[in-house]
Amino acid sequence: MTRAGRRERRDSGSSTRRRIIDAALETLTAVGFAGASARAIAERGGVNQALIFYHFGTVNDLLLAALDETSRRRLAQYEATLGGVRTVPELLDAAARLYREDLAAGHITVLNEMIGASLTYPALRAEIARRVEPWVRFAEAVIDRVTGDGPLPELVSSHDAARTAVALYLGMQMLTHLNADDTAAEALFATGRRLASLFAAP
Amino acid sequence: MTRAGRRERRDSGSSTRRRIIDAALETLTAVGFAGASARAIAERGGVNQALIFYHFGTVNDLLLAALDETSRRRLAQYEATLGGVRTVPELLDAAARLYREDLAAGHITVLNEMIGASLTYPALRAEIARRVEPWVRFAEAVIDRVTGDGPLPELVSSHDAARTAVALYLGMQMLTHLNADDTAAEALFATGRRLASLFAAP
Repeated sequence: MTRAGRRERRDSGSSTRRRIIDAALETLTAVGFAGASARAIAERGGVNQALIFYHFGTVNDLLLAALDETSRRRLAQYEATLGGVRTVPELLDAAARLYREDLAAGHITVLNEMIGASLTYPALRAEIARRVEPWVRFAEAVIDRVTGDGPLPELVSSHDAARTAVALYLGMQMLTHLNADDTAAEALFATGRRLASLFAAP
Repeated sequence: MTRAGRRERRDSGSSTRRRIIDAALETLTAVGFAGASARAIAERGGVNQALIFYHFGTVNDLLLAALDETSRRRLAQYEATLGGVRTVPELLDAAARLYREDLAAGHITVLNEMIGASLTYPALRAEIARRVEPWVRFAEAVIDRVTGDGPLPELVSSHDAARTAVALYLGMQMLTHLNADDTAAEALFATGRRLASLFAAP
């Protein structure tokens, strides 16, 4: 095979991979983890089932790769949106917008399906736990930046605040998913906005 | 059948029911939702599988009854422990103790298994969401009592604070379960204790 031929084959492999991941995300969103079989994903992506096993080994590994993909996209968006934020009220407004996007984009559905599966299947548990860590680190960096001059750092370590923020996000999106109702999340953001006034410079 | 005979039969029915529920709780704790088949539960309880279907209809209905039983026990304990609490620091200390008990008693495992299953199986979702409501009402009553005289009620509705507390509990216990690590929860209680000083009477 010529060098150009190998490159073409590699590109085509990576485009098949992307196509399968997108099909896995669509399947998780539409029919959940319980319905996300190799067959269902292959049909949705218009690819041969064998390619799933060739590229990902197992269906669970594909679903984890799909979670990685949606997490990567969302984290990039969170970084872009929150990069310019300097105050707690700005942060809460931006976080509320991002949360609504997470919901609309199906990210929250995918996350819940994978967390649900990992609670039920212990083999997935460490995989999901590991994927929470970049979000805790990101939350910590943002909290450090916006609370740098206020009274918060003396009372709360930013690492603990970040773990609390991530736990609250996970619990809130789980309630949203269970209830098919996002009023709790909206009330939380509105309340946070009012509480932030406590920490605002006088 | 005599009246005494009917009573005996009813008592024996209710004791079989309790025995099956206890076996379901043990099975959920030991092998999770994925392993909690009628067969596994019947073996653990030393009862005939047919009795499960006779008393509960389906395995999912039995598992929901088991969740109700552990929730009822824990809610009674929460009410007894928090009934005498009058200040936010007392509340946080008591909540930390109750959380540790939830963990040790396997309640958190059962809750996670059932939430995990409900995220994956939409038919269970409304059932689980409905079972969150008594906890929100309970949290609201406690928050009303301990914050009555402080500045919090002006800033945050007790209903919103209760939903936030429940979301935080669910997210935190999920992280604990995923990581097999309870340092995040312990750090949260310690932090809450320090933050409460902000709201303490001067």
